[in-house]
Amino acid sequence: MVLKKLINKPGDEVREMLEGMAMAFPEIIRLDPQWNNVYRAYKKPGSKVALVSGGGSGHEPAHAGYVGYGMLDAATAGAVFTSPTVPQIFAAIKEVATDAGVLIIIKNYSGDVMNFTAAAKMAQAQGIKVDYVIVNDDVSIAEKSKRRGTTITVLVHKIAGAAAEEGWTLPEVKRVAQKVIDNGRDIGVALTPCSVPAAGKPTFELGPDEIEFGIGIHGEPGVQRMKYMTSSELAKIMVDKIVDDLKLQKGDEIFLVVQGTGGTPYMEKFVFYRDVRKYVESLGFKVFGSWIGEFMTSLEMQGGRVAILRLDEELKRLLMAPAYTIAIRTIGPIPLPVVT
Amino acid sequence: MVLKKLINKPGDEVREMLEGMAMAFPEIIRLDPQWNNVYRAYKKPGSKVALVSGGGSGHEPAHAGYVGYGMLDAATAGAVFTSPTVPQIFAAIKEVATDAGVLIIIKNYSGDVMNFTAAAKMAQAQGIKVDYVIVNDDVSIAEKSKRRGTTITVLVHKIAGAAAEEGWTLPEVKRVAQKVIDNGRDIGVALTPCSVPAAGKPTFELGPDEIEFGIGIHGEPGVQRMKYMTSSELAKIMVDKIVDDLKLQKGDEIFLVVQGTGGTPYMEKFVFYRDVRKYVESLGFKVFGSWIGEFMTSLEMQGGRVAILRLDEELKRLLMAPAYTIAIRTIGPIPLPVVT
Repeated sequence: MVLKKLINKPGDEVREMLEGMAMAFPEIIRLDPQWNNVYRAYKKPGSKVALVSGGGSGHEPAHAGYVGYGMLDAATAGAVFTSPTVPQIFAAIKEVATDAGVLIIIKNYSGDVMNFTAAAKMAQAQGIKVDYVIVNDDVSIAEKSKRRGTTITVLVHKIAGAAAEEGWTLPEVKRVAQKVIDNGRDIGVALTPCSVPAAGKPTFELGPDEIEFGIGIHGEPGVQRMKYMTSSELAKIMVDKIVDDLKLQKGDEIFLVVQGTGGTPYMEKFVFYRDVRKYVESLGFKVFGSWIGEFMTSLEMQGGRVAILRLDEELKRLLMAPAYTIAIRTIGPIPLPVVT
Repeated sequence: MVLKKLINKPGDEVREMLEGMAMAFPEIIRLDPQWNNVYRAYKKPGSKVALVSGGGSGHEPAHAGYVGYGMLDAATAGAVFTSPTVPQIFAAIKEVATDAGVLIIIKNYSGDVMNFTAAAKMAQAQGIKVDYVIVNDDVSIAEKSKRRGTTITVLVHKIAGAAAEEGWTLPEVKRVAQKVIDNGRDIGVALTPCSVPAAGKPTFELGPDEIEFGIGIHGEPGVQRMKYMTSSELAKIMVDKIVDDLKLQKGDEIFLVVQGTGGTPYMEKFVFYRDVRKYVESLGFKVFGSWIGEFMTSLEMQGGRVAILRLDEELKRLLMAPAYTIAIRTIGPIPLPVVT
């Protein structure tokens, strides 16, 4: 079976994608071709806490799309759905490390946790100040230690990135990153599976009237196979899961992320957003702002994810602070670099 | 067969999508619920040429995503792949008309041309100054009068929108809109078909190793059924088609739009962008800038489109002028409205 994708040789897609990103946005990122690592094109003079993240590819725009002013300093890209290697992560840490230290943002997958923490230890052994947080926001899994890291990772990039840009210390940046993790949850549903280029077949099979509820971002099966239901029915059960787990209270201010899973068209994303928004407002929560688009995806999977972050004044301010990356641009008084 | 989409009742998807857009971006657009028309939330004081566009839905973010500062004043949304009605278009023209006049941007489909020009005549009969341009950029069809309107429409919105914002007269805005049409071409390829919600089945069938070359944006069959080929092979034959037709010369400066067709993940869009960019540069053209994303889509179709606009100094300046819409935000000194 020929796998129809806009790629060339399976196995080359990560490198070629990163090349495309760097060709399109040379003023924002540069590619380290030895390691498939992406760094800011412009390094801020002086010392700020550097933010490093990454993971398997196939979740675009995560993570290279979040490198830039106000967010990440480095993103390291593994093969599709495969953790980056320890030397690769170590190279990223070393490249962007400053006297203020490095905060690593890790999604809670065993391979990622193992490799990122091993690389952190290597860096510490070389005298680099390193700390990390682990994002485990996927509410579809009951046991907290087993929860996967998904969309809230991007909000950690944004909020901790703004704090780092303002010159906060490493413990302060870590504190606010952990606050985002503690107050954020995500859940996803798949209408179709996705297929890893090198494998050449879907990660699972779904009947024409079936959906996969609580889907992971690697196309791993969700927690429950269900019959197809409408956008508003899905919105309700997905929001309920998050609200229960976060113990949200009437009147709480929230930030809403409603996204496709990679292959979901904008028409469906906006219908789904409407249904999620109407439902959260009917429950008495105040929507401070929203992102609608593609943020933490699963190749060409069709479906949706909902993430909610409970806000306070500190998180609101950092969320709205200026950022300039490929995927997230918060408009404000941005001191743009002049790249020559 | 159940059609798995994030929608509710088939037939309600356009209204609900527009509601979602208006709920998410109340500072940019407002929805006229009587007509499924979208207007700027903030009407500029004084008189500028008003830009009106629209067409069938299913091409999101076209066209409601392009309403806002520096682009459209009104977008009118028909049912999926169906032209808006004459009274609906007339309502949009009437709502945004100014003493400076109205320029209507029409994609070259018989239904759109018929209904938009009929509405223009109704408006003229009421003393409104109206003119229009017809976009026919789809180079896959040899006969120019039969060429469909696709991606270049969005560049007309951007460039004519910037001219209108600067206070140009109606004939001047029309002149620059026509210049974009004369210098822009687009071509698309489908790896998978798409399905209209109310129909409940794909618009055509494609074998597992087949692609549809020269696909229209309504899922109408393309000009040629081909065997699957790689991204770089596709990039070459698509760019060649445009280059030949535009008679591009070595050294010409161009703007590049590389997009998915609605269901194409970012990984593939960036690989495809890389291949298109490498190839146009190998031919000796200078890439002034690019858009990569989703601009004129076909529901959940997987595939890609390439558009090229030949630039001169006037087009370059207007392309980079500030804009603030849902889908296109050119960062610059934007006089943002204060919506209370």
